Amino acid sequence: MRSLLLVLEYDGTNFAGFQVQPGQRTVQREVESALARVTGDQIRIDGAGRTDAGVHATGQVASLTTGSRLDDETLLRALNACLPSDVAVRLAREVPEGFHARYSARSRVYLYRVWSAAVRSPLWRQYSHYWPRPLDLGAVETAAEALVGTHDFASFAGSADPSRAEARTTVRTIIRLECRRRGSLVEIEVEANAFLPRMVRNIVGTLLLVGSGKLRVEQVGEILEAKSRALAGPTAPPDGLCLVGVRYPPAALGETRDAMPGGALGWPLSYVPFVAPTGEIESQWRQDETPDDARSKR
Amino acid sequence: MRSLLLVLEYDGTNFAGFQVQPGQRTVQREVESALARVTGDQIRIDGAGRTDAGVHATGQVASLTTGSRLDDETLLRALNACLPSDVAVRLAREVPEGFHARYSARSRVYLYRVWSAAVRSPLWRQYSHYWPRPLDLGAVETAAEALVGTHDFASFAGSADPSRAEARTTVRTIIRLECRRRGSLVEIEVEANAFLPRMVRNIVGTLLLVGSGKLRVEQVGEILEAKSRALAGPTAPPDGLCLVGVRYPPAALGETRDAMPGGALGWPLSYVPFVAPTGEIESQWRQDETPDDARSKR
Repeated sequence: MRSLLLVLEYDGTNFAGFQVQPGQRTVQREVESALARVTGDQIRIDGAGRTDAGVHATGQVASLTTGSRLDDETLLRALNACLPSDVAVRLAREVPEGFHARYSARSRVYLYRVWSAAVRSPLWRQYSHYWPRPLDLGAVETAAEALVGTHDFASFAGSADPSRAEARTTVRTIIRLECRRRGSLVEIEVEANAFLPRMVRNIVGTLLLVGSGKLRVEQVGEILEAKSRALAGPTAPPDGLCLVGVRYPPAALGETRDAMPGGALGWPLSYVPFVAPTGEIESQWRQDETPDDARSKR
Repeated sequence: MRSLLLVLEYDGTNFAGFQVQPGQRTVQREVESALARVTGDQIRIDGAGRTDAGVHATGQVASLTTGSRLDDETLLRALNACLPSDVAVRLAREVPEGFHARYSARSRVYLYRVWSAAVRSPLWRQYSHYWPRPLDLGAVETAAEALVGTHDFASFAGSADPSRAEARTTVRTIIRLECRRRGSLVEIEVEANAFLPRMVRNIVGTLLLVGSGKLRVEQVGEILEAKSRALAGPTAPPDGLCLVGVRYPPAALGETRDAMPGGALGWPLSYVPFVAPTGEIESQWRQDETPDDARSKR
């Protein structure tokens, strides 16, 4: 049996999320059914992030084991020929035995886009959350500082799903939380070791209240300390959210590490269609660095 | 009666084009029906470019005359509240009497996007044309030089539509034709005084053959000279095409010229959602320059 890694891009608009659910159209089901057609085997995939209905991905990572001897390039082409137009496999590569998209991951990177302008955008309507009020990005950035680091994020956790083992603790580590404006788009990028259900969307919903003057900057830290979901802002809608990358320790990827520009990064974030190709994000992480190494240098 | 200018953005995916056609969902019909609801009057709008089914716009310009006394800001908000989510009015302003979106226009700018990579992109699928073969952009650029200037573009004209008066001559002036690569996206931007039906898509379809080595660079000039549609490449699909701006003489816009960043430009191209906010395009044209002034300086 061989271990394989897939990098997936999908438009989440018409999916009921990543994970298989009875009677629903999900990304996992589409990929598994394409794998069955291509290899003739029922193969189960594991995804690094369980994106909700409507959430997009440009750098979702999935792992699987297969007895198929198809070479990586042939598998990639065959899968993409079988998959519907709103999901594609960007990379299919063999990885060292024991690689697991979720358990081997060191961190996930999500990008949330807000269309902040007087007029809504038809072309961005499915890929951003329209926020018609002015946003004080300085206030958002200052408030966000309280969230970076290792904290109990119970205040920002979605409804508990008992099937999710890791939901037993609500402690997570946010490695970075950055805001930037690109024209009318405000982008909030969050990297954490792992995320609680709806954590990014709950954080964004809260930060938007800060940016609009409905919450004071200091209240975000207070909400975090209170460990009460009732105090945080509403859950921002899924359309604005995109899983843009997953990072792994280089050793877990083996030679596939070199096939992924950005090295230890799950996918070169600069390749992400809707992020300007500035290379900024990539350059923060060298191939051999772990996130912790890179942090200590800054 | 007052003359008004509207700048429109739309996702062309679910429209049968801009212009009203019986029994079809068109942009013009949606905007006219929103105007009727807001003002109570049947108002006809004229668009600067008659975009085909599936073609997008971030800077379409329409003009109308109305007896309505609603101020520009109120009209903008009311129209956007009535319009469906795939079309929006970005700007509504009074312009000097006699302004006509089509006849007053000095030039139109179209952007065609090609997704040129080994793997198709789900997120770009409705906003680009997927071209799985390698593209020699240098060859495309050299071939494109033959098209810049005033020529008879009969070889690149779509099926003649007798209702289009200006189709009687097939002579047009291409002011610039630029190619650039942004990651996996290749962007071909064309500005001309006016365009024949499907002209951009026919040019792109031909240039893609050059970029893929199916046509020699010199053949583009030969095809142009032959004035025969049969010799040019196939019509590229509409999904990749977007009307990004329309330029007017500053005098035609009156004070509205200052409301349009980019001045004499129909809309700031750098604002266009899918174009990186580099300001490159804007900076080529100063407010008081005409396209001809700017050209002679280069």
